[in-house]
Amino acid sequence: MLGTGGGGDPYLGTLAALQALEKYGSPRVVEVSELPESSLVASPVMVGAPVPLIEKFALGDELEHAYRALDSFLDGRLEGLLPFEIGGVNTIVALTLGMRLGLPVIDADIMGRAYPELQLVTLTLYGVKATPFSLADEHGNRVVMNTVDNDWTERLGRAIAIEFGAICPGMGYVVTARQAREGAILGTLSRAQAIGAAIRRAEAEKRDAIADILEVAGGFVLFRGKIVDVQRRTAKGWSLGQAILEGDDEFAGKTMTVHFQNENLAAICDGELVAVVPDLITILDSDTGQAITTERLRYGNRTVLLGLPCDAKWRTPAGVALGGPRHFGYDFDFVPIEQLAHGRQLARSGRG
Amino acid sequence: MLGTGGGGDPYLGTLAALQALEKYGSPRVVEVSELPESSLVASPVMVGAPVPLIEKFALGDELEHAYRALDSFLDGRLEGLLPFEIGGVNTIVALTLGMRLGLPVIDADIMGRAYPELQLVTLTLYGVKATPFSLADEHGNRVVMNTVDNDWTERLGRAIAIEFGAICPGMGYVVTARQAREGAILGTLSRAQAIGAAIRRAEAEKRDAIADILEVAGGFVLFRGKIVDVQRRTAKGWSLGQAILEGDDEFAGKTMTVHFQNENLAAICDGELVAVVPDLITILDSDTGQAITTERLRYGNRTVLLGLPCDAKWRTPAGVALGGPRHFGYDFDFVPIEQLAHGRQLARSGRG
Repeated sequence: MLGTGGGGDPYLGTLAALQALEKYGSPRVVEVSELPESSLVASPVMVGAPVPLIEKFALGDELEHAYRALDSFLDGRLEGLLPFEIGGVNTIVALTLGMRLGLPVIDADIMGRAYPELQLVTLTLYGVKATPFSLADEHGNRVVMNTVDNDWTERLGRAIAIEFGAICPGMGYVVTARQAREGAILGTLSRAQAIGAAIRRAEAEKRDAIADILEVAGGFVLFRGKIVDVQRRTAKGWSLGQAILEGDDEFAGKTMTVHFQNENLAAICDGELVAVVPDLITILDSDTGQAITTERLRYGNRTVLLGLPCDAKWRTPAGVALGGPRHFGYDFDFVPIEQLAHGRQLARSGRG
Repeated sequence: MLGTGGGGDPYLGTLAALQALEKYGSPRVVEVSELPESSLVASPVMVGAPVPLIEKFALGDELEHAYRALDSFLDGRLEGLLPFEIGGVNTIVALTLGMRLGLPVIDADIMGRAYPELQLVTLTLYGVKATPFSLADEHGNRVVMNTVDNDWTERLGRAIAIEFGAICPGMGYVVTARQAREGAILGTLSRAQAIGAAIRRAEAEKRDAIADILEVAGGFVLFRGKIVDVQRRTAKGWSLGQAILEGDDEFAGKTMTVHFQNENLAAICDGELVAVVPDLITILDSDTGQAITTERLRYGNRTVLLGLPCDAKWRTPAGVALGGPRHFGYDFDFVPIEQLAHGRQLARSGRG
C-alpha cells in the first residue's frame, strides 16, 4: 500500500518473511528511542532493476555479505538496521537481515514510501551521505563505495548492480540513532501493520476494505475503474510507462492515466492532475483490497486508485526539489493531494 | 617498446613524466631487495578504455585518491609501489605517484609487457589476489572492491571505470616485498631505460637503431614493410583490429598481418605464425626507431616488426593458459618466438 506501486512485489516479500520467521523467529522491532543516541545503524536495500528480482531474490548470503562489508569498513560498529523504504521487498530485507543477525530494526524508514533511486531518501535532506555504501553478490564479491554525493552513489551503485546480475543487495546511510530520529520517517512499520490489519478485518467481515484503509492511512479515493491499457518499457533498469483506467460508478465516463517509473508518479484524470509524487499513489485490486505493483498491472484489473499525503519532510522546498515531479522530468510543480481534491470539490459544487 | 603496442601512449607518458620531474624531482627507484621483506607494496594502473586517455590523462588528484582509498583500507600500511605493466603510461603512473608521495618504486612490474586486462599479471600465477582494489575519479569518488577472483576484479573494475568516464586510476595487488621478489618481473624499468639509451645512442650517431635495440632487448626482426591497411573497431572498451603490412627489402612480396586487442597479439606472415602472445610483438617506426602504439597505427607507416621473448613466468603452462593465445580467442597454441624463427630458418635453408 505504502510502496506506491514499487518497493518490490509484496508476494515475494511475504514468502521471504515467512521463511525467515520459521528459521530465525520474530524480528526485534524497536522504537528509535530504545537505542542509545550514539548507536550506528544502516539501511539495507536491493539496488538495480526490480524485474529480475522475481527470479533472483537476494535474501541469502549476499545480503549478509553486504552487511559484513559495511560493518567491517566501520570496524564492527553497526548496531541496528533502519529500513530503506516502506515497500513489499525492501522493508522485508531489513527485517529478515535483522532476524538473521539478531539486530534491532527501527520502526521507521528513510523514504516513507518507495522511490526508484538511492539518493531519494529523507536523510539526503538532512545532509547525510549515502556512503560508505556496500554492495555484494551471491558469489561473495563485495564493494564499498565512497562517493562525493548521493547522486553518485545511485549512479555507481546501479552500474555495479548490473555487473552483479541486474540486482544485488546494498547497504549505506550510516547514521546514529539520534540522526535517525531527526531524519527518518518514524513509525512506518507500525503504520503498514495497521493498514494490513484493517484490510484483514474488512476481509473477515466480508466488506469493502477501502473505508477502513482510509481511516487508518488517511487519503482519498481518486478513481474507481478498469485498466484498459498498460504501456511499459524498460530503460536503464527502470520500468517506465503508464496505465489507462476507464471509470466506474461515480467516475463513469472519465479516463485516468497513471504514469509510473517503478513507482506511480502522477495521476491525471481527463487532463487534470489529481495526485503527484512525492504524495503516494496506490492502485488497489478492488476485489482483494491488495495493492498492485506497477510490474503486475494488467488489462482488465478492476481497481481503486488511492492517494495518500506524503510525509511533511517531502513537502519542504528541498524535499520537493529532490523527489518531486521535476526530478522525474515532468514540467509541472508539486501540489499537495488534499489541495487538488479540495479544488475539484469546489469546482463540482460550483463555488470554484 | 616493451608495451607491445599497448600500455598507453609514450608521448602522453613522457609529458606527464616531465611535468612530475619538474614538480617533485626524481623518483626513488629501488631494487626489491632494498625494501624490508614484509613491506607492503601495491600496483597502480589506469583501468578502462585506453582511447579516452588521450583527452583524460589521470595523473592528478584521482591517482592519489585511489592510493588513499587503498592505503586507508589497509590502515596506512602501504610502503611502496610496484609498477603494473611496463608501458608508455602505466609505468609512468607508478613513477609519478611515487614522486608525488615520496614512495619508493620497485624496479620491476607485474606483466613484463602490457596486457589489456587486470587479471593478466604474473602475480595471479602466484595466487595473489587483485583485491582489495581501489578505484577513484577526478571528482573524489572512491571504491574499494573485494572480489572472489581476479577475473571479477577486471569485470567489475571495467564497469566502474565506464561510470568514471571510461578510464580511471586504480590500485591493487597488495604484496609484501618478499612476494614481489618471487612473483613480479624484476628489472624491467632498467631494461626499458637501457633500450631507450640504445635508441638515443643510435640516433646521435645517425644510424639505424634496430641492431642496438636487439642487442639490449634480445629478439628478432620479424618483418620490414609499409602499413597498407588498418582495421579497427572498439568493443567493450577495447581497441580490436589488425594491421596489414607489405614487405620491403628481404621481405618484399610478403604480407604480414598483426592482430591486436589494445596490444599486438599475433603476427602472421603469409599464413604462417611468426610470433604470438605472451611473447612481445612491437611495431617500430623505421624512421624514428620509436614504437607505434596500436592506437597510432596509420596507413603508410614504414615499420620494422620486432619480436621479443616474454619472461619465463609467462611460458609456464599456467602462464600460457592465463595470458596465451587461447585467452584471446585464437584457436592455436603458444609457440616460443625463437622456435618459430628457428623453424623458418630451417625451412629457408632447405633442412626443414
